[in-house]
Amino acid sequence: APSKPPSVGVVGIPFSKGQPRGGTEHGPALLRDYGIVERIQDLGNKVTDYGDLTLDAVEDDKPWNKVKNPRTVGQANRKVSECVSKITRDRQIALTLGGDHSIAIGSIHGHAQSCPDLVVVWIDAHADLNTPLSSDSGNIHGMPLSFIVKEMAPYTARLPGFEWCQPCISARDLIYIGLRDVDEAERAYMTECGIASYSMQEVDKYGLPDMMERVLKTVDPTGKRPIHLSFDVDAMDPEYSPSTGTPVHGGLTRREMYYIAEEIAGTGRLSCLDVVEVNPSLGTEADRKKTVRTTVDVVSHFFGKRREGNVSADFKMPLPQK
Amino acid sequence: APSKPPSVGVVGIPFSKGQPRGGTEHGPALLRDYGIVERIQDLGNKVTDYGDLTLDAVEDDKPWNKVKNPRTVGQANRKVSECVSKITRDRQIALTLGGDHSIAIGSIHGHAQSCPDLVVVWIDAHADLNTPLSSDSGNIHGMPLSFIVKEMAPYTARLPGFEWCQPCISARDLIYIGLRDVDEAERAYMTECGIASYSMQEVDKYGLPDMMERVLKTVDPTGKRPIHLSFDVDAMDPEYSPSTGTPVHGGLTRREMYYIAEEIAGTGRLSCLDVVEVNPSLGTEADRKKTVRTTVDVVSHFFGKRREGNVSADFKMPLPQK
Amino acid sequence: APSKPPSVGVVGIPFSKGQPRGGTEHGPALLRDYGIVERIQDLGNKVTDYGDLTLDAVEDDKPWNKVKNPRTVGQANRKVSECVSKITRDRQIALTLGGDHSIAIGSIHGHAQSCPDLVVVWIDAHADLNTPLSSDSGNIHGMPLSFIVKEMAPYTARLPGFEWCQPCISARDLIYIGLRDVDEAERAYMTECGIASYSMQEVDKYGLPDMMERVLKTVDPTGKRPIHLSFDVDAMDPEYSPSTGTPVHGGLTRREMYYIAEEIAGTGRLSCLDVVEVNPSLGTEADRKKTVRTTVDVVSHFFGKRREGNVSADFKMPLPQK
Ligand SMILES: [Mn+2]
Ligand SMILES: [Mn+2]
Ligand SMILES: [Mn+2]
Ligand SMILES: [Mn+2]
Ligand SMILES: [Mn+2]
Ligand SMILES: [Mn+2]
Repeated sequence: APSKPPSVGVVGIPFSKGQPRGGTEHGPALLRDYGIVERIQDLGNKVTDYGDLTLDAVEDDKPWNKVKNPRTVGQANRKVSECVSKITRDRQIALTLGGDHSIAIGSIHGHAQSCPDLVVVWIDAHADLNTPLSSDSGNIHGMPLSFIVKEMAPYTARLPGFEWCQPCISARDLIYIGLRDVDEAERAYMTECGIASYSMQEVDKYGLPDMMERVLKTVDPTGKRPIHLSFDVDAMDPEYSPSTGTPVHGGLTRREMYYIAEEIAGTGRLSCLDVVEVNPSLGTEADRKKTVRTTVDVVSHFFGKRREGNVSADFKMPLPQK
Repeated sequence: APSKPPSVGVVGIPFSKGQPRGGTEHGPALLRDYGIVERIQDLGNKVTDYGDLTLDAVEDDKPWNKVKNPRTVGQANRKVSECVSKITRDRQIALTLGGDHSIAIGSIHGHAQSCPDLVVVWIDAHADLNTPLSSDSGNIHGMPLSFIVKEMAPYTARLPGFEWCQPCISARDLIYIGLRDVDEAERAYMTECGIASYSMQEVDKYGLPDMMERVLKTVDPTGKRPIHLSFDVDAMDPEYSPSTGTPVHGGLTRREMYYIAEEIAGTGRLSCLDVVEVNPSLGTEADRKKTVRTTVDVVSHFFGKRREGNVSADFKMPLPQK
Repeated sequence: APSKPPSVGVVGIPFSKGQPRGGTEHGPALLRDYGIVERIQDLGNKVTDYGDLTLDAVEDDKPWNKVKNPRTVGQANRKVSECVSKITRDRQIALTLGGDHSIAIGSIHGHAQSCPDLVVVWIDAHADLNTPLSSDSGNIHGMPLSFIVKEMAPYTARLPGFEWCQPCISARDLIYIGLRDVDEAERAYMTECGIASYSMQEVDKYGLPDMMERVLKTVDPTGKRPIHLSFDVDAMDPEYSPSTGTPVHGGLTRREMYYIAEEIAGTGRLSCLDVVEVNPSLGTEADRKKTVRTTVDVVSHFFGKRREGNVSADFKMPLPQK
């Protein structure tokens, strides 16, 4: 456990223009209504809630080739970047409540302004490494890392609305966990750029404990760098997070996500956590409840909850009277 | 496998006063109706069924501070203790069918009268280590170990109805498996008293096979002591045992419980098994069936069923006629 | 990954007379309708579809003792044997779409005609090693290996309709994965003949990665022999493949089957794959869909799909124009 409870800055990012389905813009409200802020506070963390960003659609935002809403996504991420940069500059852990996964462009970018030595752990069923050229769907939530990873520059294209955004991490400072639906181009880029990954095949090959040691050793052998954890809830099996846009069977279990979260929390170096792709408009009421419940539980483990039990600094043991 | 099939003594403990919900008093009937006794017999064990204890509510059983039904719980456990002591003195494995988990007070106490060198493996989502002083709910099923563990004496309080009950095991002779919902005071007591535990985080860190080796090495390095296995069905994930009073997500799977049960059976030293917190009044008919089915299956593995197959001592291989 | 994409020959075996329930004869149609052939093609494999065998019931096929439909099962398997022998002689990987598991008699027999050095990996909840004498049910889908394993000859009986069929593999060239419902006689035969197995207890003891290494080392220490993989979908937990005749709880997960399939594919030595016991007549429409979906997904991993992503030989990376 960290020596003193960390300070956390929460910001909601009600955004859905990185993908075609409405609903992810209501992710922050659902997570808040379920008590995500209070849960983190109750663990002894000091939490500042910065509310939700105001993100407007850009008018006349014509597609760039197939790519949809480029200016809207670009402008929103500029705001995300500024906000996350400010939170992390103040030495708070930033918790961004998405929104679709395109918001990680701004989140990582902003985080990197304050913490240039960050490493990125990307937990997702998907690699989100398509470029504006390779993407079939044209949805930017499948491309964020192509704008962020320096080694991807030769393969990607600059979109209108992204003039502010420079690649800010090296391929060797990124690692994937949970992949199981990877496009041909993405696989090729990963190989070309040398991006490490633990697909579900490797998760099962190494087992979680070995995997987590390897993950951290790979991106951060000296154990000193700030961790940017980008958590797409579709990394989990649809059994646990059905209300998401692109579910893929055979994912991480709730228990596995708890394990990963407790291990990350144990490093004391979590510096920014993205929670993305919760879509309250998908599935039944039961699906929605399951998804938010699981997600908030996972987040509480990222912020200190331990299954072996927690004792707060000011706890006094009740004793019988003499 | 043990060299000769063990002899088993079954007793039902239709009791629910250690917690607020009606229903656990029907646990023994549900388990019997589903054929638990026959299943153990069919594995080649000699089984004596001692029927159900008659457990009456004590009149005018006023709360002790917040603690509910102290005299009723105390008196019932005195009967449990006497019964389990008798069964185990006769060198039978005692199988106690609960009932809520408060009955483990009597079960361990009685077992310890016959087998003072017993070790306790407590499989549960909860630590059940609150004291009458630390408990918020006042339900004794969350406190049984505070009366049983010697090192807890300075922290706990003597309840009316418990005059007969002395702590009977050392903290080092107790080990937990499956914890994931541990109160602050419980965590503090565990640390103070030095009680070992494998919360779900450690279950996943070590993996079941290593964990089971460590569990047995920790409490019984020479491999000679009788094992008291106290099995709260809420240790399993609610997916497998929904009909229980305090379910907690992220629990042991059916397969994991089978594994643990086969490993414990393989030691040949199981001496008492508590099966508690089955509550037929909770959930749907499907939930109830799932719970009893899983529970009886797990119990059959504790009593010798092996997934690789069993061959009875008197089996004759069918051969073609010459 | 194999150096060049393998060539695959598919044959449907619409057969259900090895067990009492109608429905498995529709397995090939269901798998085809769900696109199993296209899925394998899309992975870059050359696929030849040989259609479905025409398998007629033999008239006046009286039981042999308890054994049902012996001549019908025998005659059908003779056709299966001829077909699989031809496919594998042409150096195609044979994919047989069952049908109940009795069809593995013909499949292994035919495969052994072309590849006498094959090894058999049998993935199943059941050992399918009963003899016409030991079987209680008289259903031949519970007996196929008793006709195939040479060391079983002293224990088994020759059925009418099986005159063409000689045992063709040694006990040491067979290994089981996933067992959890093994009859007493089967366990005894396994021990007598020295057949290795990884029941679910061993799956959990060793973990999948170690297990797969051991499986392959055990049956094929030099890593050169063709693999016959007989996949009974009831090896998987009923959560994933409910539409099957004899489901047993506590089975392999979808993820575990993917893992096994990717490992087997990685050897480059898969030579015949049986997919059996899909029964579209059992369960709800949702069950049927779940079963076929999971099964086809698993099969795609046996034929090269990787969760880390696949890149085809002729892939051209999209690049920005200069
Ligand atoms: Mn994503
Ligand atoms: Mn995703
Ligand atoms: Mn309990
Ligand atoms: Mn409990
Ligand atoms: Mn079978
Ligand atoms: Mn089977």
